[in-house]
Amino acid sequence: MPQPRNSPPIIGITMGDPAGIGPEVTIKALADVALRRSARFVIYGQNDLLTYAADRAAIHPYWFRVAAASERAGQPFTGDVTVLDYPGEDLTRPGPAAPSRSGGLASKQFVEDAITDALRDASDPRHIDAIVTGPISKESWSLANFRWPGHTELFAARTKAKRHAMMFVSPRLTVALATAHVALMDIRNVLTIGRVFDPIDLGAQLCRRLGKAKPTVAVCGLNPHAGENGLFGDEEERIIRPAIEVARRHGIDARGPYPGDTVFIDAAAGKFDLVLAMYHDQGLIPVKLLGWDRAVNVTVGLPIVRTSPDHGTAFNIAGTNSASEGSMRAAIELAVRMASLEPASPAEPSLDGPPLE
Amino acid sequence: MPQPRNSPPIIGITMGDPAGIGPEVTIKALADVALRRSARFVIYGQNDLLTYAADRAAIHPYWFRVAAASERAGQPFTGDVTVLDYPGEDLTRPGPAAPSRSGGLASKQFVEDAITDALRDASDPRHIDAIVTGPISKESWSLANFRWPGHTELFAARTKAKRHAMMFVSPRLTVALATAHVALMDIRNVLTIGRVFDPIDLGAQLCRRLGKAKPTVAVCGLNPHAGENGLFGDEEERIIRPAIEVARRHGIDARGPYPGDTVFIDAAAGKFDLVLAMYHDQGLIPVKLLGWDRAVNVTVGLPIVRTSPDHGTAFNIAGTNSASEGSMRAAIELAVRMASLEPASPAEPSLDGPPLE
Repeated sequence: MPQPRNSPPIIGITMGDPAGIGPEVTIKALADVALRRSARFVIYGQNDLLTYAADRAAIHPYWFRVAAASERAGQPFTGDVTVLDYPGEDLTRPGPAAPSRSGGLASKQFVEDAITDALRDASDPRHIDAIVTGPISKESWSLANFRWPGHTELFAARTKAKRHAMMFVSPRLTVALATAHVALMDIRNVLTIGRVFDPIDLGAQLCRRLGKAKPTVAVCGLNPHAGENGLFGDEEERIIRPAIEVARRHGIDARGPYPGDTVFIDAAAGKFDLVLAMYHDQGLIPVKLLGWDRAVNVTVGLPIVRTSPDHGTAFNIAGTNSASEGSMRAAIELAVRMASLEPASPAEPSLDGPPLE
Repeated sequence: MPQPRNSPPIIGITMGDPAGIGPEVTIKALADVALRRSARFVIYGQNDLLTYAADRAAIHPYWFRVAAASERAGQPFTGDVTVLDYPGEDLTRPGPAAPSRSGGLASKQFVEDAITDALRDASDPRHIDAIVTGPISKESWSLANFRWPGHTELFAARTKAKRHAMMFVSPRLTVALATAHVALMDIRNVLTIGRVFDPIDLGAQLCRRLGKAKPTVAVCGLNPHAGENGLFGDEEERIIRPAIEVARRHGIDARGPYPGDTVFIDAAAGKFDLVLAMYHDQGLIPVKLLGWDRAVNVTVGLPIVRTSPDHGTAFNIAGTNSASEGSMRAAIELAVRMASLEPASPAEPSLDGPPLE
């Protein structure tokens, strides 16, 4: 089983799109003194926007500011919370809550720098042990000419992860996805035995890392009633069942395929440690219904720990101090927990190596 | 708005597969005296199995038995609950809890006769005002050489309904389906503007019938994030949005398409009266998670009222007196409510006619 590390981990938090709710939920989440004491934190963001969010929430600033471009940024940070301050547009308060090129440029830079720092040697003063990503706007990234579909793909490319999967950890359900941001009717082109096996394997590894020695994994069918013995669709027999067999041969207690409309009831009742959903809505509908405001998005398969709240930029409520920090708080807590159990560094064996036990 | 009728309605209940939990949940549901007083009931089933289920549940038999083949069956039933007793195999207790040809023959006959009775003129002593169907086994029907995919298709054929849709009514969510028992990857072949419009229209009619004068209908997207402006799939723009427009031109307050993973949260919070899901699991995952044991399946678009519990035969627990009658009870209550509001007879205007207001 994973062993606790000695020193408190250093958690990087990227602020997300400057016009979204990222600054607000970050500041509100870390306003909790107990959470701040669980690790040290570096926020990649813009100090003015974070200060504005703190003002609106009547939170006394609790961080040190270090200009990202300064020499000081290369030396060890001493405070519990350091804001690595990036230049932005001349904003003492948020601009219009909408996607923008400048928002895309800034939010992408936060992530790039955090990944670079996470990949540094543990002895480097800028090394961080985990990354929590605030919500970015794909439209802002597009306006800035970045074509990444989202954080996950950027992380996978920068860390050269061969296999990765999107997971959601919430109090009652832990769910992995076999496919995510793909048109529903294109699943036929991407669903393979490997595409089903990988998230079973990577998800089971996360469960073990979180302390479940022998996790049980329920695998959803793709079709209604999991195909009802071939009556509706053949993916259960052609793809899903063989992937379950591979997983079982690898010593994973994988079961199914189960009908999607009932398996989450059993999982929420504690019968399974992890559910593998075949596609986005199959997994996200139950996660959000049962775990709203406490669900955390985790990318598994990376050599670094990466978590994220499961909401977007919420431009419609940005700047109004009405966003809930629950999911961001849960994302930070999970990152601390994962980073505390195991050193996260480039030297760490890839999660797709042999089981950690 | 629909008007209450004068006499208590007569509700037909088909017992379902003799080897499933249908007999048990029927007997347990009607054991409630208050429910029995809300209408009169005719159970199409086998008296020995119903008696066995009552014995196991320590319920004193509360019904009159009339042999289905007897002359007595053509005269008015006087009791509150009449069991129309069909010959079965020589069963004083249930046979093996498994699909069988005899189970298919019997359970199909119950349904055929109930439909015939529902289509009779209201003056006919055998007329019934609504049908609640107990769970059948598709495999039993198949063993008996019946090729119907399920109740719904049989009802549609026998009543010559041109349009029909599957809906689920539960305390927190009312959901209609655009597609149901079709392989997920075949949705591309069946999803049309009409296929999306019909359940919006029929579902809104049911909402009005249940007392919501101006129902709001949320329509799900098919793809992740409802396609995110065409990024993943084009069905939202090609099919779903045009169907919503047609519905709005028909005076229905239809909105969307909304992302499937968040719309049910809003609906459960009361923001919408009805959600139209594009496919089985998208609609059934939230219905079952939030409404387990209280969800009712309703076929809309038929000239007769038909409801059903949302579970199957549950052969694995049949005969053990451990099935919950919650969903059957809710199905009976909804049938009583619908039949009480409006005479259900062949002369009734089809639900796919003009709005009922």
